[in-house]
Amino acid sequence: MPRLVECVPNFSEGRRREVIDAIADEVRRTNGARLLDVQADESHNRCVVTFVGTPEAARTAALAACERAVELIDMNAHRGEHPRLGAIDVIPFIPISGVTMDDAVGIAKTLGREIWDRLRVPVFFYAEAATRPERRRLPDIRKGEYEGLAAKLADPAWMPDFGEAKPHPTAGAAVVGARRPLIAYNINLSTDDIEVAKKIARAVRESSGGLVAVQAMGVKNESGKAQVSMNLVDFTQTPVQRAFEVVNEEAAHYGVTIVESEVVGLLPLDAVVDVARHHLRLRDFTREQILETHLME
Amino acid sequence: MPRLVECVPNFSEGRRREVIDAIADEVRRTNGARLLDVQADESHNRCVVTFVGTPEAARTAALAACERAVELIDMNAHRGEHPRLGAIDVIPFIPISGVTMDDAVGIAKTLGREIWDRLRVPVFFYAEAATRPERRRLPDIRKGEYEGLAAKLADPAWMPDFGEAKPHPTAGAAVVGARRPLIAYNINLSTDDIEVAKKIARAVRESSGGLVAVQAMGVKNESGKAQVSMNLVDFTQTPVQRAFEVVNEEAAHYGVTIVESEVVGLLPLDAVVDVARHHLRLRDFTREQILETHLME
Repeated sequence: MPRLVECVPNFSEGRRREVIDAIADEVRRTNGARLLDVQADESHNRCVVTFVGTPEAARTAALAACERAVELIDMNAHRGEHPRLGAIDVIPFIPISGVTMDDAVGIAKTLGREIWDRLRVPVFFYAEAATRPERRRLPDIRKGEYEGLAAKLADPAWMPDFGEAKPHPTAGAAVVGARRPLIAYNINLSTDDIEVAKKIARAVRESSGGLVAVQAMGVKNESGKAQVSMNLVDFTQTPVQRAFEVVNEEAAHYGVTIVESEVVGLLPLDAVVDVARHHLRLRDFTREQILETHLME
Repeated sequence: MPRLVECVPNFSEGRRREVIDAIADEVRRTNGARLLDVQADESHNRCVVTFVGTPEAARTAALAACERAVELIDMNAHRGEHPRLGAIDVIPFIPISGVTMDDAVGIAKTLGREIWDRLRVPVFFYAEAATRPERRRLPDIRKGEYEGLAAKLADPAWMPDFGEAKPHPTAGAAVVGARRPLIAYNINLSTDDIEVAKKIARAVRESSGGLVAVQAMGVKNESGKAQVSMNLVDFTQTPVQRAFEVVNEEAAHYGVTIVESEVVGLLPLDAVVDVARHHLRLRDFTREQILETHLME
């Protein structure tokens, strides 16, 4: 099994194509890293770079991209609708295969130290890499944004995890961490009644007593049907098939069925293998039995 | 999606390690081909080499391995329990991804011509590459074996598809073709009664009126439980989940349940994706949504 982490850094530039390209090119030219996607949002003035690689390559690529972002982005001139703390803003590492969450936290910590040592940008650790509970959630760390950063850092409660307690003059501060892969998973129901989707969402989401590691809301989909729209934030705790099955059971109470479901964006192979393992009651099945796994770098 | 074929050549050498290694090394050193497995059987005096590659690389690797086999194996001295027609014996190409069955047949035909042109070994095409119905099945082509080959080739009904109607003096003849990947799939039942497994096997296998492209028999497994042991010879016609579901329904008629199932050896990613797509009623799901597919060569 290849040792693989995903990295999804968010940089505060969504308009100047040449800057976005220069940042992404750092990932492209790193041996052992593979660029999967670059998305730029003009109104957010922000870009999201998605890549995977070995732990070492992912850290090297992330640092090179950060260096370029610090060089090319001046937060004093930055305007955009999305909250942000600096040019680098946020870098999550996500264990994909052959890598534990502890490994991903280790990569984040090493990168955080390098960002301070080499780029002089102070660093907060968040999510699984957080050093205290109040730093787990991004919105809490980002509160005050770049414009309020000097004041925030002056508060002893917000001493950075690496670096001095004052913002980099043009790059602000960076947030680095580790989290599970998030699977965006929607289930379309055989009804137009959005209230049913909302009730099912309440029943399945963790915040109101449902399934662990599930966020859910009831919405109307593009064809006007009721949809349970979910984020599965840790499929090792609640796998895709369990979310499907619980929504299916809840739907039956309203005389409603599941018409279809959809995965938005990417998901790890292990999540797909889990569905097959569950449905077929597979014994001793490993992903190495899938022919194509032998073709991964 | 990478263009990928699997190739599983069988050579008539299962005892001399240096010969088996020399043959496998030809695959190892071919760019674009990846050796997955080499299995040698001493009593059969035969080895099975499994590799994957682009269509071009797979053909190149197969031809190089054949050349080495013809050089190192003398069928006049060959004894073994498994039926065989020559040093190369049989080479199937199997479409895995981004490649049609027609493509695989094309690769087989080109390789067949090269085996005659360069190695002077006459060639029969079998399975999907067969030129006539009576050449589809390997046992029919192999009948008479190496020892009866000269007589067989003298019969106009058994003119080779490429080459002259007489055996290569040391390598005999070769059989080349194309087939679907075969998934070896066993289902263990909650009973010791093998008769139940035999009845279910009769209900699900194609030869007695069950599911297309399914071979099945009822056996006792290593823990003494009844097992339905299947070969799914074309999962694009009968996917794994359908075999599971029909066995499950049949078992219910005998008051028996499925305890677990197992895949023996390898299966293509598409077969696993199909299970997830079916179970979750996935809409518009493609294998490119699986993160790891972007890491395949």
